Amino acid sequence: MLTFVGLGLYDEDSITREGAAAIADADAVFAEEYTSTLIGATIEDLEDSHDVSIERRHRAGVEQEPEPILRAAEDGDAVFCTAGDTMIATTHVDLRLRAAERGIETRVVHGVTAQAAASSLTGLQNYRFGPSTTLPFPEFHGADGLPASVTNTIEENRERGLHTLVFLDIKAAEDRYMTADRAASLLADSDGDTDDYGDQLGVVVARAGSPEPVVAADTIAALADRSFGDPLHLLVIPGDPHALEADALEAFAGAPPELLPDR
Amino acid sequence: MLTFVGLGLYDEDSITREGAAAIADADAVFAEEYTSTLIGATIEDLEDSHDVSIERRHRAGVEQEPEPILRAAEDGDAVFCTAGDTMIATTHVDLRLRAAERGIETRVVHGVTAQAAASSLTGLQNYRFGPSTTLPFPEFHGADGLPASVTNTIEENRERGLHTLVFLDIKAAEDRYMTADRAASLLADSDGDTDDYGDQLGVVVARAGSPEPVVAADTIAALADRSFGDPLHLLVIPGDPHALEADALEAFAGAPPELLPDR
Repeated sequence: MLTFVGLGLYDEDSITREGAAAIADADAVFAEEYTSTLIGATIEDLEDSHDVSIERRHRAGVEQEPEPILRAAEDGDAVFCTAGDTMIATTHVDLRLRAAERGIETRVVHGVTAQAAASSLTGLQNYRFGPSTTLPFPEFHGADGLPASVTNTIEENRERGLHTLVFLDIKAAEDRYMTADRAASLLADSDGDTDDYGDQLGVVVARAGSPEPVVAADTIAALADRSFGDPLHLLVIPGDPHALEADALEAFAGAPPELLPDR
Repeated sequence: MLTFVGLGLYDEDSITREGAAAIADADAVFAEEYTSTLIGATIEDLEDSHDVSIERRHRAGVEQEPEPILRAAEDGDAVFCTAGDTMIATTHVDLRLRAAERGIETRVVHGVTAQAAASSLTGLQNYRFGPSTTLPFPEFHGADGLPASVTNTIEENRERGLHTLVFLDIKAAEDRYMTADRAASLLADSDGDTDDYGDQLGVVVARAGSPEPVVAADTIAALADRSFGDPLHLLVIPGDPHALEADALEAFAGAPPELLPDR
């Protein structure tokens, strides 16, 4: 049996009780930290908290050499865990498919996701978000400015009045995390076809899922001049906030009223 | 202090360890079951599991008479909990705003959401979902057939190749939950402007977050003729699945290959 366990967003207590039980009962526990990472706990903290030994797998150790994980799942109960929810991005669907091809039973124990937290903390409603996008470090996407995927997603969502969650690039192996102020600066400096992003409303969510998250709304140009402390950061570009969403942005994110619709 | 705690999706172990600690430490715990509900645990099960007393609040007891909750939060540590994540839909943002107006500190402990589970269990990627919609019981929305909000959302998403999560109506106070087969039947019988839904691919997710969820992909007409057991059910209408998503739908949801793109 191979059980995929989402660790949630921040530290060793972000996991569900069901996930903790799966780890405690497992014969072998694997973790990867390259797609995301817990900022508030190391693998060693997880080992101490769950009283288990955890084998760390790097990208190649999951994607090209999944054998140790699959063998452990054939021989007993193996757990594979990641931050957030394990199956929410494609990376690990491949591992689940390989297990299924080998006749290994799989199970998913869900974790809290950044999308849920971004909606919950900002008061922007989950059913009013369009598709999300990821803003990469410029030096990794290989061209000046923003990739069209980012601006197109924001603009197509905005045409429908929808909010956009912008994930910020993570190079966990190098301990590099794009900050929301840098992301805001990249947006403010971009040449949007139809938009001057700098004057528009943005919302930063820093350390979602931690005991003291920061949620800050302002013009994107103003957000670019602030700093939001430790990672992980997210950036939300609201579409057309309705009245209760606007109230929440003002009360919980300090949004300047002049950037919000009249209520 | 007023702490909003998401209970997650299924039973008393769907909560995070952080949420369980908040409940254990609280001076007063409130719960509501009208927006959603845990199918695998009653309020009494939660009381036993957390060794606390929980006061059940009905809709009017939160929206029109929030005083007992607010007073408890002024006098000590109060916890307000719901299934899923407490802040993901507008209903409880109002309570948080009222607390803030009274100068009561608030905190949100996130829970696993149906959206995260629907993406994770189907293998359809979270960043490729458009906005979600809710399919109401026909006798409650007051007109024949489907509300335009449902078909418009599905069609606008599909034009962009995006998946749609369709929440199914819940009348928790009456213990009534729309089943996915009924939802599929309503869609198949509707007169879509541009679509004949019956022939198209749909994916049912039943009992997301439980130990044995059911995930089933087929034409919407075929799904209407099946039954999926106990609630809660969700329905996903895929947009244009990419190759790995199609592989996952075939392997984990039994999607007929002829309904999937060539790979």
